[in-house]
Amino acid sequence: MSKPVYVLNGPNLNLLGLREPEIYGRETLADVEALCRATAKDFGLDVIFHQSNAEHELIGWIHEARGTACGIVINPAAYTHTSIALHDALKASDLPVFEVHISNVHAREAFRHHSYVSPVAIGVIAGFGISGYAAAIRRLAEVIR
Amino acid sequence: MSKPVYVLNGPNLNLLGLREPEIYGRETLADVEALCRATAKDFGLDVIFHQSNAEHELIGWIHEARGTACGIVINPAAYTHTSIALHDALKASDLPVFEVHISNVHAREAFRHHSYVSPVAIGVIAGFGISGYAAAIRRLAEVIR
Amino acid sequence: MSKPVYVLNGPNLNLLGLREPEIYGRETLADVEALCRATAKDFGLDVIFHQSNAEHELIGWIHEARGTACGIVINPAAYTHTSIALHDALKASDLPVFEVHISNVHAREAFRHHSYVSPVAIGVIAGFGISGYAAAIRRLAEVIR
Amino acid sequence: MSKPVYVLNGPNLNLLGLREPEIYGRETLADVEALCRATAKDFGLDVIFHQSNAEHELIGWIHEARGTACGIVINPAAYTHTSIALHDALKASDLPVFEVHISNVHAREAFRHHSYVSPVAIGVIAGFGISGYAAAIRRLAEVIR
Amino acid sequence: MSKPVYVLNGPNLNLLGLREPEIYGRETLADVEALCRATAKDFGLDVIFHQSNAEHELIGWIHEARGTACGIVINPAAYTHTSIALHDALKASDLPVFEVHISNVHAREAFRHHSYVSPVAIGVIAGFGISGYAAAIRRLAEVIR
Amino acid sequence: MSKPVYVLNGPNLNLLGLREPEIYGRETLADVEALCRATAKDFGLDVIFHQSNAEHELIGWIHEARGTACGIVINPAAYTHTSIALHDALKASDLPVFEVHISNVHAREAFRHHSYVSPVAIGVIAGFGISGYAAAIRRLAEVIR
Amino acid sequence: MSKPVYVLNGPNLNLLGLREPEIYGRETLADVEALCRATAKDFGLDVIFHQSNAEHELIGWIHEARGTACGIVINPAAYTHTSIALHDALKASDLPVFEVHISNVHAREAFRHHSYVSPVAIGVIAGFGISGYAAAIRRLAEVIR
Amino acid sequence: MSKPVYVLNGPNLNLLGLREPEIYGRETLADVEALCRATAKDFGLDVIFHQSNAEHELIGWIHEARGTACGIVINPAAYTHTSIALHDALKASDLPVFEVHISNVHAREAFRHHSYVSPVAIGVIAGFGISGYAAAIRRLAEVIR
Amino acid sequence: MSKPVYVLNGPNLNLLGLREPEIYGRETLADVEALCRATAKDFGLDVIFHQSNAEHELIGWIHEARGTACGIVINPAAYTHTSIALHDALKASDLPVFEVHISNVHAREAFRHHSYVSPVAIGVIAGFGISGYAAAIRRLAEVIR
Amino acid sequence: MSKPVYVLNGPNLNLLGLREPEIYGRETLADVEALCRATAKDFGLDVIFHQSNAEHELIGWIHEARGTACGIVINPAAYTHTSIALHDALKASDLPVFEVHISNVHAREAFRHHSYVSPVAIGVIAGFGISGYAAAIRRLAEVIR
Amino acid sequence: MSKPVYVLNGPNLNLLGLREPEIYGRETLADVEALCRATAKDFGLDVIFHQSNAEHELIGWIHEARGTACGIVINPAAYTHTSIALHDALKASDLPVFEVHISNVHAREAFRHHSYVSPVAIGVIAGFGISGYAAAIRRLAEVIR
Amino acid sequence: MSKPVYVLNGPNLNLLGLREPEIYGRETLADVEALCRATAKDFGLDVIFHQSNAEHELIGWIHEARGTACGIVINPAAYTHTSIALHDALKASDLPVFEVHISNVHAREAFRHHSYVSPVAIGVIAGFGISGYAAAIRRLAEVIR
Repeated sequence: MSKPVYVLNGPNLNLLGLREPEIYGRETLADVEALCRATAKDFGLDVIFHQSNAEHELIGWIHEARGTACGIVINPAAYTHTSIALHDALKASDLPVFEVHISNVHAREAFRHHSYVSPVAIGVIAGFGISGYAAAIRRLAEVIR
Repeated sequence: MSKPVYVLNGPNLNLLGLREPEIYGRETLADVEALCRATAKDFGLDVIFHQSNAEHELIGWIHEARGTACGIVINPAAYTHTSIALHDALKASDLPVFEVHISNVHAREAFRHHSYVSPVAIGVIAGFGISGYAAAIRRLAEVIR
Repeated sequence: MSKPVYVLNGPNLNLLGLREPEIYGRETLADVEALCRATAKDFGLDVIFHQSNAEHELIGWIHEARGTACGIVINPAAYTHTSIALHDALKASDLPVFEVHISNVHAREAFRHHSYVSPVAIGVIAGFGISGYAAAIRRLAEVIR
Repeated sequence: MSKPVYVLNGPNLNLLGLREPEIYGRETLADVEALCRATAKDFGLDVIFHQSNAEHELIGWIHEARGTACGIVINPAAYTHTSIALHDALKASDLPVFEVHISNVHAREAFRHHSYVSPVAIGVIAGFGISGYAAAIRRLAEVIR
Repeated sequence: MSKPVYVLNGPNLNLLGLREPEIYGRETLADVEALCRATAKDFGLDVIFHQSNAEHELIGWIHEARGTACGIVINPAAYTHTSIALHDALKASDLPVFEVHISNVHAREAFRHHSYVSPVAIGVIAGFGISGYAAAIRRLAEVIR
Repeated sequence: MSKPVYVLNGPNLNLLGLREPEIYGRETLADVEALCRATAKDFGLDVIFHQSNAEHELIGWIHEARGTACGIVINPAAYTHTSIALHDALKASDLPVFEVHISNVHAREAFRHHSYVSPVAIGVIAGFGISGYAAAIRRLAEVIR
Repeated sequence: MSKPVYVLNGPNLNLLGLREPEIYGRETLADVEALCRATAKDFGLDVIFHQSNAEHELIGWIHEARGTACGIVINPAAYTHTSIALHDALKASDLPVFEVHISNVHAREAFRHHSYVSPVAIGVIAGFGISGYAAAIRRLAEVIR
Repeated sequence: MSKPVYVLNGPNLNLLGLREPEIYGRETLADVEALCRATAKDFGLDVIFHQSNAEHELIGWIHEARGTACGIVINPAAYTHTSIALHDALKASDLPVFEVHISNVHAREAFRHHSYVSPVAIGVIAGFGISGYAAAIRRLAEVIR
Repeated sequence: MSKPVYVLNGPNLNLLGLREPEIYGRETLADVEALCRATAKDFGLDVIFHQSNAEHELIGWIHEARGTACGIVINPAAYTHTSIALHDALKASDLPVFEVHISNVHAREAFRHHSYVSPVAIGVIAGFGISGYAAAIRRLAEVIR
Repeated sequence: MSKPVYVLNGPNLNLLGLREPEIYGRETLADVEALCRATAKDFGLDVIFHQSNAEHELIGWIHEARGTACGIVINPAAYTHTSIALHDALKASDLPVFEVHISNVHAREAFRHHSYVSPVAIGVIAGFGISGYAAAIRRLAEVIR
Repeated sequence: MSKPVYVLNGPNLNLLGLREPEIYGRETLADVEALCRATAKDFGLDVIFHQSNAEHELIGWIHEARGTACGIVINPAAYTHTSIALHDALKASDLPVFEVHISNVHAREAFRHHSYVSPVAIGVIAGFGISGYAAAIRRLAEVIR
Repeated sequence: MSKPVYVLNGPNLNLLGLREPEIYGRETLADVEALCRATAKDFGLDVIFHQSNAEHELIGWIHEARGTACGIVINPAAYTHTSIALHDALKASDLPVFEVHISNVHAREAFRHHSYVSPVAIGVIAGFGISGYAAAIRRLAEVIR
């Protein structure tokens, strides 16, 4: 049986749909989860879906994914720009990683332009709304085939 | 009848499939065009597909797209990082713009980390191979609906 | 009945009064709490008072404050300078925020001069000792009236 | 008899209440003066209150304050960011100094983020409106006791 | 009756015609004044003409201009590059502002390339000799019509 | 018979009047041309007027102007900030050069603050709308007399 | 009886021996612990040994060490470069601190060259493999004697 | 039969001998061509010689050279410092590249110190006048033997 | 009869001998004046001696010195680092200028390391206490002979 | 018979024990040598021990070590931060290199934070006093085994 | 009789042919000397050939060359990037200087991109292997004729 | 008997009077020595006078001066800007140090603006020609009295 995809979500994403909808849209994290599961299903893949405001929980799930998952789709939110620990954990996972941002971070404040995750990711998608998750899972499925 | 999508490709992309395949893959620009047409068709959209090594030709096509197109999907290649003229043309187009890079530019040389196109784009996708074009067209179709 | 003020304290503030008293003074966090409660009472306000060394706990309390509190007074300590996640949480709270530093961070090491919290705060007070908390609560009371 | 507090105001503050009220509020410099006198009175302190658009007049008053005042509360306005001469004068005064900004300068243009006054101040308060003056006088009174 | 134009000149401009004529030309400040009056007359405008080496005098005239003038033409000379106080005063004036430099400051020392006045000006003209004043008055007349 | 003035316009200026009118105004490039011809006529000067989105065409016209023109008025648009080739061509022309920007580039995005053209220009005018062209021609006529 | 040494390990070090062995070697964290205990024993010292991916847990152990330990040997891993909170905690501990890195961080990516821990450490050792821990304990024993 | 050398010349080099002879000397591009042909002949090599002010024409010739040429000698002139597109084209050519500058660019304006071509060149020669072309061809002949 | 030397002193120097004697020594400005007069007398030179906290007064005296003085010895104090207006005035004076600092500014805060006066001075002396004035006058006398 | 370890010491280390003992301790270079010999002996290794204030002598010894030594332990002192020539020599030696600093250079002046030696060293130890030499020799012995 | 050429070689070049042959090739310094003598002979020039690891020896030879030599060809190796003393000596020599690097320093580590020698050289050649010396001598012969 | 003054001169100063006389004047190093001896004699001081192009010789003389000299007057020439080793040696000397530059280094190339010697000097004098040496000796005599 095939290994699942880990879909990990960083700090404040539990507020999705409530917080600054003009930037992040009106869909909730539950909608994201549903979309991920539906997309993954098309490729015969299971989804392990998590959100945490804690950097160490994200690190823990990435460690867990080593060897048990087929890949990681991660929206590191604010930790994108500050966490070398996530960089190290993802690099150590030896898994294909895709980085997702709901808004186009490249067009926002300067402090959102640098990512510690991108150098260890295969692909990066930003500004596609929650569709970015689906695109990432679809690409992961292509890549691991 | 609905307006077409402009899919524009910048310098050196005519060499796709030949040049540095370990970075850009083995698919050619003809494959990209076929993929774009197939994807757009699913949404009832026509595709105007161009490649040029000349900045001014890209600008010309963007001007042409104003009013006649439903959106622009652009892989500006090297001009991403140096062309304020493209930035201005895209901004002036008043169209939804998606920026595509075949490789993950965020994980390559530092001079590929800054984009003049991103601030005028809705979304940016990089490192998804030529699938990035399909994802961009798909998202454009969602956005303009 | 009026909503309470959240008074949040970041890492190492549990050592207040013990650690480097020549910089931080000899009053403890219990003294801070008492001062906050006394000041808030003058304006008929309750206080929810917390300290944590964990970024995610601070984020959790800020999320909790959304809708239930009348404002946030926060001494983010070391996270002031490194946490974009706190910035995002405070912005998402849609509450009036006041930033307090016991010592004058502007006159200390260069790495303490930049704050990710200030852009989402109404006011910032530094170097007033623990009186800064009282001033912030007093100002919050004025602002929300 | 106790020495007075010098409350000094820098360039353009004579326009307070008229200029950009969405940033600086509708209260005038006369209101600030009245607030300062009232607050100081609570602590048995007199106030010497001045405003000038001229850097050298501010320097002159600071020199005057040496030995005759109990402390200085200063809103250096634009000179905050450009005047090393004020820095030198305040340092030479050997008095406790408090720096006040009506608006939250830390959340405005980058050129308002650096202060030459902060390194010679005990405390800094910004974004508290004209209440910042009262808080500064109150803290000064605590400190000199 | 129409409101006058304020034409303000910063430090060292009293030496015009004497100082470094290869850079600033041989015409004096009196010539500038005559040119301004003649040009303004064509548009039925009076001119209030001042020069000062003192930053605070320039600020004072800008404050005076608020409400009484139709616009400000200013050659801030050396204060262009160092005076945030002038920036604030001009912004507070709520008047159309034109910035004039006799020499092409953009082609001189690096420290003359940044202007604190430009962000609050409508237009900037440099290197047109004293004709720049006439062009600024002419444009001001067009703008306020 | 006197030599003509070259008036050259860079990328996207063909859209003048259509594109972002709140920044660039509602007048078209034909209006600019008419204004230039009318102004030049007052000084007995002919105008050679061109626009191109292509850097090399602008360079070609500058080469053509060497020896045959009395001066160059150029609005290099986006190439202002990126083209060392234009800098070299203008320097090689041995002609008086005036740089025109319709909007006040000094008050816009940081990437519009640096010009490669200014060091080889006699004068620079920005934010005067299309009147900037007339002022430049007028000044050129004074200079070459 | 003498106070124990705290040996603290930061994020991802639980993967030691598994993750990138060409950089970090093949020894596990259990091997590190054994080596520390053996080395400390030679000097009659006990070891309290911890690893955590959570910044706040590391802070908690440092607080615990205040007054109860004779010194701290810490490998802060990725938090070396990002955590001002660890800096503050270690400074507040008033204990001799030694910083250990298994690999030579000075010869790796630029973002690993700056350490927030070094300014509060007595000594720093990098690139000595797990022997660095032993060297640090040995030196600590010398220092506290 | 052996493959030819491409000798490519960037913008403004058509003016060679006319433009700033104190920097570039009095020899023309025809002289350069003659020198290149003579030098190449000594090694039994043909020369394909081009100049263009257009970046895309240079790119086109580089693409043409792929597979058909034995190497490229390029004087990219102003595009040296601004064109990532040339960098990409040269890298994609898989040919030995030599970069030539007639003047010593390293001793001129700071903006001429950085080259996007050098990282993809085998050798760089500057300040040798037009002899630099001959030296480059000579070295190319050695290298490809 | 020979022209006098202007000896000019910037802001806060009226406090000399009182302010931070560990940095500036215990001698007063009157001592400086006496020393200057005595030194100048040895060379048959008169001294015009001034101090001001006002930038414009210093500028005024420099203008006055043009043509009437044989040279300027200036201790610009804090204006050293911020006043382009002084730079311009000194340059316009066409006089030999010597810059004096009582303390060694090169060994103090970074913001005291840059001087706008040095580029227009013949010589600079710092850290010689008030003897620096005498050395400067002595050298001026040598230079003008 | 086994090859010796070169222990090299840079400028001013001949003053060890005399110079700034609060930073460098009271032990002399002779003590360092004795410690090195004793430590090396435990591993059956000879020591070649040198100190020089001359960069070229250090380079000479490194060249000598190529092929004849088993490794280099170097305290490059001030040359750490300025000598690319040492970097090149050490790289060319093809030997395992350990870099030692007696004081914790990472906690001192900013100009001591960058090392040209670290990128060519296996390990770096700083702030361990002269014990750092012993630790380096011990580690070298482990590595070469 | 004609004056000789000085060919000077900086630190570590005595190892040429031994050290990192994939960067510097397999030819030795004796080969370089032979090549230089042969090339110079073609132009009737003698060669004074030196190598030193000592900056002061290189300076000494440059001083010696003043007046006695016809020019200097120098490969300053690591001193290229760090020695202002060489810059000063070469400038003081009043001789034509050519700078040679065997490898393409412009394509290596960032710290090899800046040269203190280039501003005082006529020409610079890098990445041509030892042929660069021959090209430099040939060019020198042309220049001094 | 009193201790002598060490007067030390850095690289290229042996050429004084010959090299770039428009910058350094026409007096030779022998003139400097004579001036120093004459000046020192007035204060009953002997002079030890040296010049070297070698950094290590300068360091050697500084070490020699420790304990045997009353102070050091040093013109470090090019080593001013690059030698941390001189900084360390001077600091270790525990002697009063005066730094002399014949030309006004503050008004020359940017790379001459930073000095590693100034932070360990009492005073700095530049642009006074060789008189700077006399002024330094005179001041040293005052200081040590």
